[in-house]
Amino acid sequence: MSRMPAQVRDLIMELPDSKIREVSLNSIGKPGLIALWFGESDEETPEFIRDAAKAALDGGETFYSPNSGIEPLRAEIRNYMGRVYGRDLDLNRFTVTASGMNAIMLSFQALVDPGDNVLVVSPVWPNCSETIRIMGGEIRPVVLDERDGAWSLDLQKLFDAADEKTKALFINSPGNPTGWMMSEGERDEILLWARKRGIWIMADDVYARLVYDRAHAPAFIEIAEPEDRLIAINSFSKSWSMTGWRLGWITAPAALEHDLAKLNEYNIAGPTTFVQHAGVAALRDGDPYVDGLVERLRRRRDLVTQSLGRFSRVRYTPPDAAFYAFFAVEGMADSLKFALRLRDEAGVGVAPGIAFGQSGEGYLRLCFASSERALSEAMERLRPYLD
Amino acid sequence: MSRMPAQVRDLIMELPDSKIREVSLNSIGKPGLIALWFGESDEETPEFIRDAAKAALDGGETFYSPNSGIEPLRAEIRNYMGRVYGRDLDLNRFTVTASGMNAIMLSFQALVDPGDNVLVVSPVWPNCSETIRIMGGEIRPVVLDERDGAWSLDLQKLFDAADEKTKALFINSPGNPTGWMMSEGERDEILLWARKRGIWIMADDVYARLVYDRAHAPAFIEIAEPEDRLIAINSFSKSWSMTGWRLGWITAPAALEHDLAKLNEYNIAGPTTFVQHAGVAALRDGDPYVDGLVERLRRRRDLVTQSLGRFSRVRYTPPDAAFYAFFAVEGMADSLKFALRLRDEAGVGVAPGIAFGQSGEGYLRLCFASSERALSEAMERLRPYLD
Repeated sequence: MSRMPAQVRDLIMELPDSKIREVSLNSIGKPGLIALWFGESDEETPEFIRDAAKAALDGGETFYSPNSGIEPLRAEIRNYMGRVYGRDLDLNRFTVTASGMNAIMLSFQALVDPGDNVLVVSPVWPNCSETIRIMGGEIRPVVLDERDGAWSLDLQKLFDAADEKTKALFINSPGNPTGWMMSEGERDEILLWARKRGIWIMADDVYARLVYDRAHAPAFIEIAEPEDRLIAINSFSKSWSMTGWRLGWITAPAALEHDLAKLNEYNIAGPTTFVQHAGVAALRDGDPYVDGLVERLRRRRDLVTQSLGRFSRVRYTPPDAAFYAFFAVEGMADSLKFALRLRDEAGVGVAPGIAFGQSGEGYLRLCFASSERALSEAMERLRPYLD
Repeated sequence: MSRMPAQVRDLIMELPDSKIREVSLNSIGKPGLIALWFGESDEETPEFIRDAAKAALDGGETFYSPNSGIEPLRAEIRNYMGRVYGRDLDLNRFTVTASGMNAIMLSFQALVDPGDNVLVVSPVWPNCSETIRIMGGEIRPVVLDERDGAWSLDLQKLFDAADEKTKALFINSPGNPTGWMMSEGERDEILLWARKRGIWIMADDVYARLVYDRAHAPAFIEIAEPEDRLIAINSFSKSWSMTGWRLGWITAPAALEHDLAKLNEYNIAGPTTFVQHAGVAALRDGDPYVDGLVERLRRRRDLVTQSLGRFSRVRYTPPDAAFYAFFAVEGMADSLKFALRLRDEAGVGVAPGIAFGQSGEGYLRLCFASSERALSEAMERLRPYLD
């Protein structure tokens, strides 16, 4: 009789933990701790969005909904994309998903056979890579170059990394954790290259609206043809402070609508029905909130920059987008150990750079979507360790 | 320049549609149609559960939550499992998931490598099989025997279907669509066999409480040792009428807690935070609702049985569990075509047997979780086609 401990796939046992989760484990809500480790604003979801969810609950929106998303939400996504990007996109190009994360999983389920590889512009939020791994694919990091804390992409390096098994390029711009933002010229060149090579672009656009030097980040969806192999990922989490809601959407060629609907059905059926109604309100009435959030984030970025710029061990350039300070610490060999020390000694929670791949080692990520008071206090606490 | 239509994995393009969705496509909410095709009660979620969600929204529960689920919900699941099954299970055996469907996907991601096979007691809800396919696994249906409309499992047939590549047995008891319920004796034998063979049991227990001849269906979790290779799937959808909420849970060996947390992180992060708080209320205060629902369903089953028993073309035995009438129709060669005809001519939506695998051909599934008035009218409309 075999009574060994349960065994799961080797791939799954070897799947690394999110090292962000590892630092925060058992410390969420610890009194006195200033938690800047997650990619999450400290603001509750705006009331008008919560009210829309409550109204949908009162209205009995508690039943199954269509696999591609409820029609009012798909229509509102269409309006939103038209307003932001100036493109009139067909309704059948949108699939509502249970978060940006879930959109990434569905997309890689659609694309990645065992043995395929995916180019991943790095350092980057680890979850996209782990998703590739779960599907049996190979991750090929394409590492951004850093100079004085500013990040740039070597296009030739990117193009050279592809081979005949390359199924997709995953590109998160504005990027988490770096804040790197693809230029319009880079975008155009990458699209031409991907077209020629028949490689899918997975554009993780979840920070597209959290930008400080223009209205929105350059996006493939602005210039792509309807049939281009482009999957653009979006999420309600960041721009509308809805991390706990689990709602996002995919914009893809219409030819994928049916396959994505099937994958939605076989993964989760679809996001929570009344949450989708709240999504309608967020997109329809949320522009003032997003604008205000960007202004608050800009002040917070500047506050953090003031301190980081003065700390002698820190190499950092403030980002033009997203809500992270990602900075190098001179002499720090092990970012995970250092982050644990900051947590335990300084009472400040930051994410270790190693959480974002090997190319992130030597850096720390601090989410500045917190109150100025908390950020000022955090900077004071960090000074002895960084200065 | 390659501008072919987008191509996804062959596996995904070949993935069948849910034929339940196929029949219902474009007809949801069609005036006059009596829709009995989905596995969904026509009752809105009870008010006390909706109130709990609204209170959580008011309380600012709009942020990320832990990957295994919020602690109050895991604690309440423990209470519930203790109350129903008389077992005191450790907290680290529970993982909260975004629906029963999502629990199945996470579990097969954990277990199925390409080339592995999974035994599936059939006919059964198709989604579990498609999930296996997405992961590159092989489905081995083990077909229940039907006599006079009653279903039974030939254990020897089940045991003989396994080979060295068999990773798991998927068993949905009470079963959708058949209503078949595993006996205590069968359960005991299957567990001994699976233990000896080192084969995982995935027990889909979502209908465990919708039972008409006893308090709950026999379940592996009642007798399993903590280390047994058992993954028990549960859902809030059926017993608490929460289909649109996307909330469920897994009970597994504690050794899997960590891997399931990782998979939650990399699939969806976790279910909607305030929905989890509503789940606490459902489990804590929901027993009277579940009892009442079972009584209503019993009357509805009896009403449907009265008619079906009289129809000359129908072969049917009323089930002791779940909320489906699954009946053979004499002379019906193509259940999908027949279901489309019933939809278009009779204005009654039922699911074709073929939706539940080849072994379901020749049958129709009718969900009787609708008002007695709707069911009576549906039976009248169906008479010319079935009598």
